[in-house]
Amino acid sequence: MHIGLVGLGKMGNNMRARLEKNGVEVTGYDTNPAVSDVATLADLVKALPAPRTVWIMVPAGKITDAVVNDLEGLLEKGDLIIDGGNSKFTDDFRHSEQLAAKGIDYMDAGVSGGVWGLENGYGLMVGGSEAQVERVMPVFDALRPEGPREEGFVHVGEVGAGHYAKMVHNGIEYALMQAYAEGYELLDTRKDIIKDVTGTFKAWQRGTVVRSWLLELLVRALEADPEFQNIEGYVQDSGEGRWTVEEGINNAVPLPTISASIFARFVSRQEDSPAMKAVAALRNQFGGHAVKAVD
Amino acid sequence: MHIGLVGLGKMGNNMRARLEKNGVEVTGYDTNPAVSDVATLADLVKALPAPRTVWIMVPAGKITDAVVNDLEGLLEKGDLIIDGGNSKFTDDFRHSEQLAAKGIDYMDAGVSGGVWGLENGYGLMVGGSEAQVERVMPVFDALRPEGPREEGFVHVGEVGAGHYAKMVHNGIEYALMQAYAEGYELLDTRKDIIKDVTGTFKAWQRGTVVRSWLLELLVRALEADPEFQNIEGYVQDSGEGRWTVEEGINNAVPLPTISASIFARFVSRQEDSPAMKAVAALRNQFGGHAVKAVD
Amino acid sequence: MHIGLVGLGKMGNNMRARLEKNGVEVTGYDTNPAVSDVATLADLVKALPAPRTVWIMVPAGKITDAVVNDLEGLLEKGDLIIDGGNSKFTDDFRHSEQLAAKGIDYMDAGVSGGVWGLENGYGLMVGGSEAQVERVMPVFDALRPEGPREEGFVHVGEVGAGHYAKMVHNGIEYALMQAYAEGYELLDTRKDIIKDVTGTFKAWQRGTVVRSWLLELLVRALEADPEFQNIEGYVQDSGEGRWTVEEGINNAVPLPTISASIFARFVSRQEDSPAMKAVAALRNQFGGHAVKAVD
Amino acid sequence: MHIGLVGLGKMGNNMRARLEKNGVEVTGYDTNPAVSDVATLADLVKALPAPRTVWIMVPAGKITDAVVNDLEGLLEKGDLIIDGGNSKFTDDFRHSEQLAAKGIDYMDAGVSGGVWGLENGYGLMVGGSEAQVERVMPVFDALRPEGPREEGFVHVGEVGAGHYAKMVHNGIEYALMQAYAEGYELLDTRKDIIKDVTGTFKAWQRGTVVRSWLLELLVRALEADPEFQNIEGYVQDSGEGRWTVEEGINNAVPLPTISASIFARFVSRQEDSPAMKAVAALRNQFGGHAVKAVD
Repeated sequence: MHIGLVGLGKMGNNMRARLEKNGVEVTGYDTNPAVSDVATLADLVKALPAPRTVWIMVPAGKITDAVVNDLEGLLEKGDLIIDGGNSKFTDDFRHSEQLAAKGIDYMDAGVSGGVWGLENGYGLMVGGSEAQVERVMPVFDALRPEGPREEGFVHVGEVGAGHYAKMVHNGIEYALMQAYAEGYELLDTRKDIIKDVTGTFKAWQRGTVVRSWLLELLVRALEADPEFQNIEGYVQDSGEGRWTVEEGINNAVPLPTISASIFARFVSRQEDSPAMKAVAALRNQFGGHAVKAVD
Repeated sequence: MHIGLVGLGKMGNNMRARLEKNGVEVTGYDTNPAVSDVATLADLVKALPAPRTVWIMVPAGKITDAVVNDLEGLLEKGDLIIDGGNSKFTDDFRHSEQLAAKGIDYMDAGVSGGVWGLENGYGLMVGGSEAQVERVMPVFDALRPEGPREEGFVHVGEVGAGHYAKMVHNGIEYALMQAYAEGYELLDTRKDIIKDVTGTFKAWQRGTVVRSWLLELLVRALEADPEFQNIEGYVQDSGEGRWTVEEGINNAVPLPTISASIFARFVSRQEDSPAMKAVAALRNQFGGHAVKAVD
Repeated sequence: MHIGLVGLGKMGNNMRARLEKNGVEVTGYDTNPAVSDVATLADLVKALPAPRTVWIMVPAGKITDAVVNDLEGLLEKGDLIIDGGNSKFTDDFRHSEQLAAKGIDYMDAGVSGGVWGLENGYGLMVGGSEAQVERVMPVFDALRPEGPREEGFVHVGEVGAGHYAKMVHNGIEYALMQAYAEGYELLDTRKDIIKDVTGTFKAWQRGTVVRSWLLELLVRALEADPEFQNIEGYVQDSGEGRWTVEEGINNAVPLPTISASIFARFVSRQEDSPAMKAVAALRNQFGGHAVKAVD
Repeated sequence: MHIGLVGLGKMGNNMRARLEKNGVEVTGYDTNPAVSDVATLADLVKALPAPRTVWIMVPAGKITDAVVNDLEGLLEKGDLIIDGGNSKFTDDFRHSEQLAAKGIDYMDAGVSGGVWGLENGYGLMVGGSEAQVERVMPVFDALRPEGPREEGFVHVGEVGAGHYAKMVHNGIEYALMQAYAEGYELLDTRKDIIKDVTGTFKAWQRGTVVRSWLLELLVRALEADPEFQNIEGYVQDSGEGRWTVEEGINNAVPLPTISASIFARFVSRQEDSPAMKAVAALRNQFGGHAVKAVD
């Protein structure tokens, strides 16, 4: 099999390496000529056998939109675009409709695994037609982890379903991370009792109910910097957590831990909290409680 | 009626003024001789007609314990101690038992109203025996707001019930404050839409569903400092909110908003969040996401 | 002043009464002929002096859209539509743009006060142009509560700002209600200590920090049915709370208490919780813990 | 090595089997004669070589207290009690002090792994003196999972530290379970998009960021009953989650996801929610919103 891959950043580059290692031929395109196999997107399309398969691995939103637009002008009826980025599922609906007008097929693939995917394989959640999923299965098999296919790959449903599943995956991920982090803070706070915080997390890796890959990563991080002295408690978010809460709200599904973990990230990025200024001001108003004046 | 008042700080002093204005004679004692009517606690007790009533208005915990201990040695069978401070209801159980051994009566009074109580009167929640509540009703009538007694005073139950009710009152208070504060932050964040944040809160004071005394205080605070430029988002807590959550936990009562408002205060006091350091470290581990290094 | 009012349901009817009581002439239209002053919307428009002012008071969403569409075809350049319903602020952007093409002005008015507005007046939050706000001020003055205008009326900003402010108002309202409700549940659970739950809430109405209009309503409700024996813990939501959380998420504003209060409503409407089924299943898997079988 | 084991229920029995399989001699005692090796606790003590080691594996609280009391009267200076149950760390402080008076040593061991421990080994978190931990290491080695000792065993600190770590472990566990459960509910709610909910969870087992042992258990549960049709969303809690929140509160450590997961369990056990009755009553009061009457 021979596919095109648009976007050779941290993720795309690793994925190309894994694909090639596992026998899939890849022609890669990136705006950075230093890593690109071809000069232009048109050249990429020309290099591929029909029906063409182009996997997009660029930032969600406008950049993905632009690549889809460009490919729409270059691809032919029967070709296939797979969006493997972190797009919102509603973007898939839009892209799919746009491309269908020209007979170009569309598929969305949620990809999990981060920088470890090259070595471990990528967990894949795919949305699209049965026929196309069958056709590009060699690509999925090359990317996914070893072991039974159904433990690292799922055809979730029609277009959009892959990114929907990935969105929920990431929403869960946010709350899992927050859960370990809360436990860490409590253990760290009671170092009068807990003499070995890192050792405690380390000892949870086998046999316990909380063992997980994230726990193993936390152990790695603690072993590298046991007090997190070189890291600030400032946490970005990349969209999926927000969309998960939005979907919870839209569908009347209560998501207390997932929303709490997003809000914790929002707070982590604030220099000072307007809300807590208001609370401090209120306490001062009714109780004459001292406030901390801004210096 | 003539009572003793131990503790002439911000609250005690105001309460003395209101009691005297409304015809209750008060002999006050404070460790600060500048404000004390008598030199010693023994002198205070001597100054009172039997059966004596001594109202304690000092910080909860060890200081209240010490005053109760001292009074235990000075008072006689039939005398009454009222703890009007912010004691935990379980302290009331302990104090009551301790004093009962000597025939001294005990009552707890939750007092709400802050620095405004002198002018507006204090909301009172009282725990103790029917007979004693009747006997000292003139004191409660002097302290409570004008209007029907049952709108500013309640005999909640036996000893401890007054502080229990006050604890829940404050737990609710925490969540009410947080609710307004969250709304403030959202309005403040969308000043591209909301051209008059202070004016919006101001306009909620009449007719709306959210009108309240806390809202009026928020308007006062905003009018004094519309951007809260002179105030830090650093908020203390004085115990009752924590005890409320503890009671929720002990009695399997879900308290999502009250607990959220306490946690927001905890976060507001952290220089940096150990939990969010852990989350940042985790993101870095799996995604190679950049972290903010500590300078 | 003479205006048209479309929608004579619970809210619209009360508003008509208050407007007329305060000297504003109202021609009302409703699809229900029994309460309508005119046979058709066209008749309503014909009855009004130019420049016409038509206040819409119908359910948000499709029904409001339909009325705006119909009025677009009937009104003339210089006329004004005021949407006083619970529309989302983004609907205002859309309606305003649609009508501007024909020179028809648009204004949004968030209205708070519920069934009490007839008597107490309605809190008003208005978005639109300065000139139009000035022109229809007699209408706002008739609707708003007595007292200083700025305590029951605010011109929040351009079109959409009124409903934005109302949305946040309602988000806050949700959390306020939940806060009192959590306190109620805790007091109710500890009736071994709290001998008079209704009396406790009643006594918070004067002097305390938590006094509010909602508290007064809670007292009314408790006095009518002290154990809430005739009411189910099933709570609807009407959109604004969800939009508030959505806006929090979109703007990285943490809203822990507001989101918690929405989620509590979602849970209240579930026959059984799929999430808690999953948790029960998990506990059973690792601990052999008994599960409650569905009958 | 030869130890005594008090409590041969689900956990104790499995632990005895694993100990014996791995070369530790066990004399077991249970109040149920059918499974007990000896007739009385005194007989158990007599059967053990000095210095004796008795591992207690009975329900936390009064039952553990009673066993400790009984053993206090039977053991001698230099003997050791290990509490492997789910006791609160403050019970350890008490038990340790009580036994120290007679020269009996005490150790606490948090044990994780549930019904799978027999096969997989038990994650162990131990509090006690260095010397005693060394002495009974063969017991821990027999119980813990295969692999490096530090990945399934930790000597956390002095007495109480083991149960403290286990408490936090369980607090985290609650939030992890809730996180997956929320994700499940959202996927399940959008079955219009997600055509294979079980398959989605199944595909997360390899390569993804959220892979964990709990996820594997959730897959097992879903494969057995894909719609959880035979299970009620009714979830017990066994104390550690509550204590974790209590400790968070006592130490000003924010625990939003852990507390949310406990509260979700509380709600799951309510026939109807008093809090939500209050909210429904309030909505009815101000908006005339219909309430659901109790049948």
